[in-house]
Amino acid sequence: MVSNMKSFIFLFILLVLSKTVTSARKPSKSQPKPCKTFVLYYHDIMFGVDDVQNATSAAITNPPGLGNFKFGKLVIFDDPVTIDKNFQSEPVARAQGFYFYDMKNDYNAWFAYTLVFNSTQHKGTLNVMGADLMMEKTRDLSVVGGTGDFFMSRGIVTFETDVFEGAKYFRVKMDIKLYDCY
Amino acid sequence: MVSNMKSFIFLFILLVLSKTVTSARKPSKSQPKPCKTFVLYYHDIMFGVDDVQNATSAAITNPPGLGNFKFGKLVIFDDPVTIDKNFQSEPVARAQGFYFYDMKNDYNAWFAYTLVFNSTQHKGTLNVMGADLMMEKTRDLSVVGGTGDFFMSRGIVTFETDVFEGAKYFRVKMDIKLYDCY
Amino acid sequence: MVSNMKSFIFLFILLVLSKTVTSARKPSKSQPKPCKTFVLYYHDIMFGVDDVQNATSAAITNPPGLGNFKFGKLVIFDDPVTIDKNFQSEPVARAQGFYFYDMKNDYNAWFAYTLVFNSTQHKGTLNVMGADLMMEKTRDLSVVGGTGDFFMSRGIVTFETDVFEGAKYFRVKMDIKLYDCY
Repeated sequence: MVSNMKSFIFLFILLVLSKTVTSARKPSKSQPKPCKTFVLYYHDIMFGVDDVQNATSAAITNPPGLGNFKFGKLVIFDDPVTIDKNFQSEPVARAQGFYFYDMKNDYNAWFAYTLVFNSTQHKGTLNVMGADLMMEKTRDLSVVGGTGDFFMSRGIVTFETDVFEGAKYFRVKMDIKLYDCY
Repeated sequence: MVSNMKSFIFLFILLVLSKTVTSARKPSKSQPKPCKTFVLYYHDIMFGVDDVQNATSAAITNPPGLGNFKFGKLVIFDDPVTIDKNFQSEPVARAQGFYFYDMKNDYNAWFAYTLVFNSTQHKGTLNVMGADLMMEKTRDLSVVGGTGDFFMSRGIVTFETDVFEGAKYFRVKMDIKLYDCY
Repeated sequence: MVSNMKSFIFLFILLVLSKTVTSARKPSKSQPKPCKTFVLYYHDIMFGVDDVQNATSAAITNPPGLGNFKFGKLVIFDDPVTIDKNFQSEPVARAQGFYFYDMKNDYNAWFAYTLVFNSTQHKGTLNVMGADLMMEKTRDLSVVGGTGDFFMSRGIVTFETDVFEGAKYFRVKMDIKLYDCY
């Protein structure tokens, strides 16, 4: 009897410790696995280059002349987000927010925006901000919050430029990985 | 004696498991209860419509003409935040930040701001960002961080337009729910 | 034997409870210890006052006249960040983002930016936002996310103005404390 209880206690210790370790949030070098992932395409069609009918974004400031790479050009957007590369596909979300160029000797940008989901699959938002280091093949921004289906989510969005047609159109592949899910 | 110990261990197991489950952060469909809530009113009085003495916000860009709903108008604000609907009540906080309009076929906005509390009750800040989907009766933005009394807080702010007097004045009810408290 | 087991169980209870308390995230008045800290200096050299060669930031809007403290002046920056006070030291990071002035009767600002680390010691980013209450000796902003070496980090950045040479140059000491490390 006492022996059985000892075995039981030992197993119980293992159980509790493993759970305790799982819920700890202190330093560990390996990144946790995401609890939700999806890949989306973001399409930006600039007003002034294209017309009101097609445009999904517009610059609201002129670059003040610090270098030749549009430093200080600020663009507001309400861009369609699709699950394939065709910007005319039915959007699964809108990306609403802004970016600006911020480097004097190369193209580089900074984004803050909300992914607004309103489909049968997802309702809710993800809020994103971070540097878009355009000279890198891929670059990571932060998902800093979420609402609705994405209540309190956090994670990473990895940008990869898919198409860049000068000032007229660009498409970015957004690889979204959420690590805090409720 | 052994029987007593068995009961004790059993109760202890229940206790530990319930605590462990509470502290787990992995997927669960039901949203947790907020650890702090409050309802505040945000008052925005636009410069140019009203005078310097009364104004609490000012547009810094002109809409570039993408549609008829002020797309690209960016407004900086330092707005009083009160616990009742009277904008002349003693503010319990200031809301400092910006919003811009971002839709070409309807009114829609995007906000990022800091709630700066400086009262006997609260000292500290809450940082908020997200889409203000004005066509919805209520819409959720993210509390992405906090300082002081709100050290490291996260949560949701639910916006509900309370009064909208054209370009001159609007009031938004902010229902704030914090889920990470320290 | 039973007595030994009782002692063992008692110690085990203490062990588990102490761990459980550590991992709990509900209200506790004392702030946790940061898991990573560093002090950095941010240098801002304004274009228009200084030339293209030296400038690291540029205003993109003119204040619309709400008071005499630059309300509504929005500045984009790509500023060097160093570990000492010399702005010509090798930067350990760039601060890329924006600030604007937002008070009509005093100087006050609001920041959102990314610290982009690219040194042998650190690769990755920290995303920061919050009010810069310039009348306070020190003021806290939120680290709302991180990538790379700072994967999913959160924390506080405490600003302290170190030098302020009018419109030409200012230096801010940034005391960074991270509380969520992976």
